[in-house]
Amino acid sequence: MLNLIKIGGNIIDNESHLAQFLREFSAIHGHKILVHGGGKLATQLGTQLGISSQMIEGKRVTDADTLRVVTMVYAGWLNKHIVAQLQGIGCNAVGLSGADANLIPATQRAPEPINYGYVGDIMPARINTEFLNHLLEQDMSPVFCAITHNSKGQLLNSNADSIASSLAIAMSKIEQVRLIYCFEKNGVLSNVDNEGSIIPELTYESYEEYKTNGIISQGMIPKLDNAFKAISAGVSEVVIKHALHLNSGGGTVIHL
Amino acid sequence: MLNLIKIGGNIIDNESHLAQFLREFSAIHGHKILVHGGGKLATQLGTQLGISSQMIEGKRVTDADTLRVVTMVYAGWLNKHIVAQLQGIGCNAVGLSGADANLIPATQRAPEPINYGYVGDIMPARINTEFLNHLLEQDMSPVFCAITHNSKGQLLNSNADSIASSLAIAMSKIEQVRLIYCFEKNGVLSNVDNEGSIIPELTYESYEEYKTNGIISQGMIPKLDNAFKAISAGVSEVVIKHALHLNSGGGTVIHL
Repeated sequence: MLNLIKIGGNIIDNESHLAQFLREFSAIHGHKILVHGGGKLATQLGTQLGISSQMIEGKRVTDADTLRVVTMVYAGWLNKHIVAQLQGIGCNAVGLSGADANLIPATQRAPEPINYGYVGDIMPARINTEFLNHLLEQDMSPVFCAITHNSKGQLLNSNADSIASSLAIAMSKIEQVRLIYCFEKNGVLSNVDNEGSIIPELTYESYEEYKTNGIISQGMIPKLDNAFKAISAGVSEVVIKHALHLNSGGGTVIHL
Repeated sequence: MLNLIKIGGNIIDNESHLAQFLREFSAIHGHKILVHGGGKLATQLGTQLGISSQMIEGKRVTDADTLRVVTMVYAGWLNKHIVAQLQGIGCNAVGLSGADANLIPATQRAPEPINYGYVGDIMPARINTEFLNHLLEQDMSPVFCAITHNSKGQLLNSNADSIASSLAIAMSKIEQVRLIYCFEKNGVLSNVDNEGSIIPELTYESYEEYKTNGIISQGMIPKLDNAFKAISAGVSEVVIKHALHLNSGGGTVIHL
């Protein structure tokens, strides 16, 4: 069983939470892959450098300057900081972007109807599962940042949740995969202000209902869309849970 | 034969020179490893962020803020930019720091007599040659930035010339190694203002003479010390030459 863990930005932004999460990750037996988001550091750095990133319909446009900033922060500081921390607690991590070993080829999103710039959409079928499997077989734990490339020399900014589901789908052709989206909440909540209001199971039908009723908040929808994509494409288990209770029960289990 | 190429910062700072160099690198048959320096980008970014890096005896002190900047620039932007460019011209590059797969463990330099901060000195005997060899056997080309770690969770800033010689020495236990230091000059020059004044061969004896006479400039000495360390520790060939003529003859050949 391969455990594929996506860790969100809010945990990364807090050093002690990050350290606690990494101990949980390190304690997982067997094959494991970590995908990390970006946190606030890229936005802070962009602001400090006077790079005003344009927002269209709530989404950030990745122009050349922004691409450089996110590559520095995600592939540079965050990725290597996480790898060094994992090495320090005995987990043989290897930090990777999608460009390395051509692991995650992506296509730059079409500029129509909205030009989001250097944003890459991933095709799970093109992921280099052979090399990933090779690393796992040698007891290494790949740690991915959310930077990909078009295989023609251009780096691209991709969504970390999509990278996690794409890697999970691709690797499910080789071994059973458990995909865990973990973050600073206990799971999918029916009331965002009440950490006790965890929805223990979500089927596609109940998900649609919760969306219609406005119970599932806007911010959760892209993550849940990725979760359902994964469970419907061969991933064995998909769970959404708290990062600091990775190896305990709880959270929201996704069913078809 | 493994070709281990160190590329200097002045070539990296020029996009068209970098592209030309990467085509030369890509054209090398067989096993190859690239080690890249930093260029001016880290200094520029530090200045933009108002991080005043302290200099002692001409050497930069790596405090926590500076370490973050160099990790962002070296391991983030430069490393992934180079990897993506190499992938774009058909070279299966994989970007690495010394923390990844515990490839290059280093010890933080003692704070006495001068505290240079988070600077790491490398021990060739501790390099993970097994994993490197594994990558090379799969026709991958490792691309190293000059970031290492202490294996206990701390990233460290190391000298790229020293990383190149340490990797060359370590890998020479497995296969024959040619170490090439390449940069923006034609080789070691007897007159820095005359690109034609290449010293075609340097023995340790003649090196000592050139130093005594002040003919070899101060800036070349750390590189040449690394070159002689490599040739005396089992590396088969050491050459110092122009980055844009990597696959032509010329340059300065180092002999014991």
